[in-house]
Amino acid sequence: MKLNMLLFGLLAATPAAMLAQTTPLEAGKAYTAAHKQELTKQFEEFLSMPNVAADPAGLKKNAEFLKAQLEKRGFEARLLTAPGLPEGTPYSVWGEMKTPGAKRTIVLYAHYDGQPVTPSEWENGKPFTPVEKMVDGQLRVYARSAGDDKDSIFAQLTAYDALKAAGIPLKANIRFVWEGEEENGSTHFAKILASNHDLVTGDVWLFCDGPTDQTGKPIIAFGTRGDAHLQVTIFGPHRALHSGHYGNWAPNPALALVQLLAGMKDGNGKVLIPHFYDGMVPMGPLDLKAMAEAPVNDNALRKELWLGRTDGGGKHLIEMITYPSLNINGISSGQTGPAAANVIPISATANLDMRLPLGIDWKVEQDRVIDYVKSQGYYVTATKPTQDELLSHPHVAWIERNQGENAARTPLDTPIAVDVVRAVNSTHGPAVLVPTSGATGPEDAMEKATGSKVIHVSMANHDDNQHAANENLVMQNLWDGVDMMAALIAMP
Amino acid sequence: MKLNMLLFGLLAATPAAMLAQTTPLEAGKAYTAAHKQELTKQFEEFLSMPNVAADPAGLKKNAEFLKAQLEKRGFEARLLTAPGLPEGTPYSVWGEMKTPGAKRTIVLYAHYDGQPVTPSEWENGKPFTPVEKMVDGQLRVYARSAGDDKDSIFAQLTAYDALKAAGIPLKANIRFVWEGEEENGSTHFAKILASNHDLVTGDVWLFCDGPTDQTGKPIIAFGTRGDAHLQVTIFGPHRALHSGHYGNWAPNPALALVQLLAGMKDGNGKVLIPHFYDGMVPMGPLDLKAMAEAPVNDNALRKELWLGRTDGGGKHLIEMITYPSLNINGISSGQTGPAAANVIPISATANLDMRLPLGIDWKVEQDRVIDYVKSQGYYVTATKPTQDELLSHPHVAWIERNQGENAARTPLDTPIAVDVVRAVNSTHGPAVLVPTSGATGPEDAMEKATGSKVIHVSMANHDDNQHAANENLVMQNLWDGVDMMAALIAMP
Repeated sequence: MKLNMLLFGLLAATPAAMLAQTTPLEAGKAYTAAHKQELTKQFEEFLSMPNVAADPAGLKKNAEFLKAQLEKRGFEARLLTAPGLPEGTPYSVWGEMKTPGAKRTIVLYAHYDGQPVTPSEWENGKPFTPVEKMVDGQLRVYARSAGDDKDSIFAQLTAYDALKAAGIPLKANIRFVWEGEEENGSTHFAKILASNHDLVTGDVWLFCDGPTDQTGKPIIAFGTRGDAHLQVTIFGPHRALHSGHYGNWAPNPALALVQLLAGMKDGNGKVLIPHFYDGMVPMGPLDLKAMAEAPVNDNALRKELWLGRTDGGGKHLIEMITYPSLNINGISSGQTGPAAANVIPISATANLDMRLPLGIDWKVEQDRVIDYVKSQGYYVTATKPTQDELLSHPHVAWIERNQGENAARTPLDTPIAVDVVRAVNSTHGPAVLVPTSGATGPEDAMEKATGSKVIHVSMANHDDNQHAANENLVMQNLWDGVDMMAALIAMP
Repeated sequence: MKLNMLLFGLLAATPAAMLAQTTPLEAGKAYTAAHKQELTKQFEEFLSMPNVAADPAGLKKNAEFLKAQLEKRGFEARLLTAPGLPEGTPYSVWGEMKTPGAKRTIVLYAHYDGQPVTPSEWENGKPFTPVEKMVDGQLRVYARSAGDDKDSIFAQLTAYDALKAAGIPLKANIRFVWEGEEENGSTHFAKILASNHDLVTGDVWLFCDGPTDQTGKPIIAFGTRGDAHLQVTIFGPHRALHSGHYGNWAPNPALALVQLLAGMKDGNGKVLIPHFYDGMVPMGPLDLKAMAEAPVNDNALRKELWLGRTDGGGKHLIEMITYPSLNINGISSGQTGPAAANVIPISATANLDMRLPLGIDWKVEQDRVIDYVKSQGYYVTATKPTQDELLSHPHVAWIERNQGENAARTPLDTPIAVDVVRAVNSTHGPAVLVPTSGATGPEDAMEKATGSKVIHVSMANHDDNQHAANENLVMQNLWDGVDMMAALIAMP
């Protein structure tokens, strides 16, 4: 695919936006209204660039493309890495615009990589060929990373252009840091930050990622949950067996796996693994107040999602995401549907993810799950078990640990936090204040590496199918996001 | 693929086989020894013809090919069907050779269709391109239906040629019935038999299918288990959700499914569904004696299969397959391995099969499982649940019933049963006598439609991967099978 390196251009300013006293909101609105068609085209071309972890060359193209976009606007720009990283580790794209006399440095973070894709699950079969569709009167664009998280990068660049077009001067130093490994566990991001410490510090890191509230109100989140992953595999007969000739005698690995997983939670979604909730830092009074004021959309959401019940025994979503969670991302053994055959499968695998509040270390939580598996009579291996291991233990589980993150949280009364709330509320507020988001990002690594506060702002529609097939963005969310980014970039 | 319709020819007789007093064993041995290379080539060309239910045209080609093989040998041959069957229903191939003065009619059954294939799971990626491989000094041929069940058809035709070459006259009328729908539940076979009643009756139906004993001794089985299938699907959110933003609140369908399945069996493989074992006809004294005399290969088999334990609390395989069983053929939800993503999947599906001894009707057993699911608080639908159904019930399971079969069993002291044992023992015996096989076939339908006794004889190696990828036949089993078929075809 040939990419036009001049895609994001500073388009002609509109006279209306040139008036004195123009606010960032007005500047953003005027700019996107005047250039909607070109901006839509540019956004779709950005989405056409494959950006998954399995394709390091594709990620590199994205990074080089973004660096060029920054340079074109007069930013100092670099591709950041660190000594000793494996070949193909995605760069973080860095850009800086210094403001004479600035008292603060504001760092805007986003990520340009996307979740893995299974093309056959997409309606058009092509996650990197954007499709426009009107859904209930709203224009949506469907493509990987439309809502997570190329929308944020595109809105930041466009917001800068809009401010410039309107003649609104910057007050702070502005830094952009766009990561390329967020969806792959941000494995090397802490090292990249540490190796480039002076370039990435600031008074605040604005983590621009994730969806808005279900009502469409912007969310400002002051923390994120950590996460941890495990892959569990149970083995059956060494070759697939006829279920008639051997069924009742040769143990079925899928049955063993479902029995192991079934005991991990109760019928309400409460995790039964011992110590799973131990160590979590409780919410403070300001946090509890913000949660009480947040809109409750549970019932509308339940209907939209065709859910006949929810976990948590009636507690609200905003509360439930402050607790640790355990989720089955996938399970597979043998074949289902038309391809199902009368066999006893050779193995069964499940992928688990855990989300963790402040106070619970992700490696400790992995240990607790593994200890639980052992307590169920399993011999646990970290590598694929040998014939000897399988023969000498009645129950063997192969558990692979994947990369994780710890939680982070910024107190709501931090001065810069108060300014961020004021800026967002000046555009499409009032914002919903969330003490912690349910999702995970590299905030903990950021805070450790930069010493900066991290505050999360988000702009994508809540039903953007992020991390799944048919990811999409409601285009109005992009235009509103430009206004919000303009207010944040123009902060004192 | 162009197929040579003259593949299976009566090859030149060897002088040794022309001697008077030649036994069927000697006739078979001499014929296959003299023509091993041509026969191997012909067998592999037969295996190259795709024969799965999803490909009715492929099945039709197999049927027409076999009819031509029969006609070439002077058999009266027909493609059997029944009025009102759906278009594309596979034919049963029928052939008859009448013997003047015969007192008995012997019907030899086999099936020419194969289990569904997933080419990516096969070592060569092509289930219909036979591959020869020496494994531990034995030549094996790998292809779908190598051991289940084209080997039986090929051995029957070759045995007839061997008897003719050796000048051994037939004593009984011989009929062949080769089904094309056995691996798809024999859905229409009873109707085909009923519509062609006079063509398919006989004194005995020899059901030629399935593997030998694990030691390689021929098995004569006097019954089969019935089977029943169910596909269970549980729904989660109507679109895949980010496990961070919704994990702990939106119920996970994979978790619900594992909890539902986990309770169906205990840790020893005993089924906990109420009434699951009710109604089974116990074994008689002759059956128990045969089972006691059968070789016990459990420990060797356990090692070969890398199994650290077996179900049944130490009871032997031959006993365990006389009980009802419940097996998970496959389970799937979301993605596992490198494709796993941080989502709450939209649904989770499991395919179950049950094997049933005499006395338990397959539809009744399906009802028992469905009743159990209901007893766990589920609202059960037979068709894909609607939004309203999902919203108005906390737990919904979509359960699809697939086609099943009932068990069949012939008493060991039936006169024709005694003759069959004598014939098999005259070749590569002594045979292992099994009151019931663990597997399933259309025996019940056969007995009902033809009024004939059904006795099961088998020739494939026990480790032939039938119903799975890399299905194969040890070629020596084909040559021994020809001897056995010759003795059976030459029976009085």
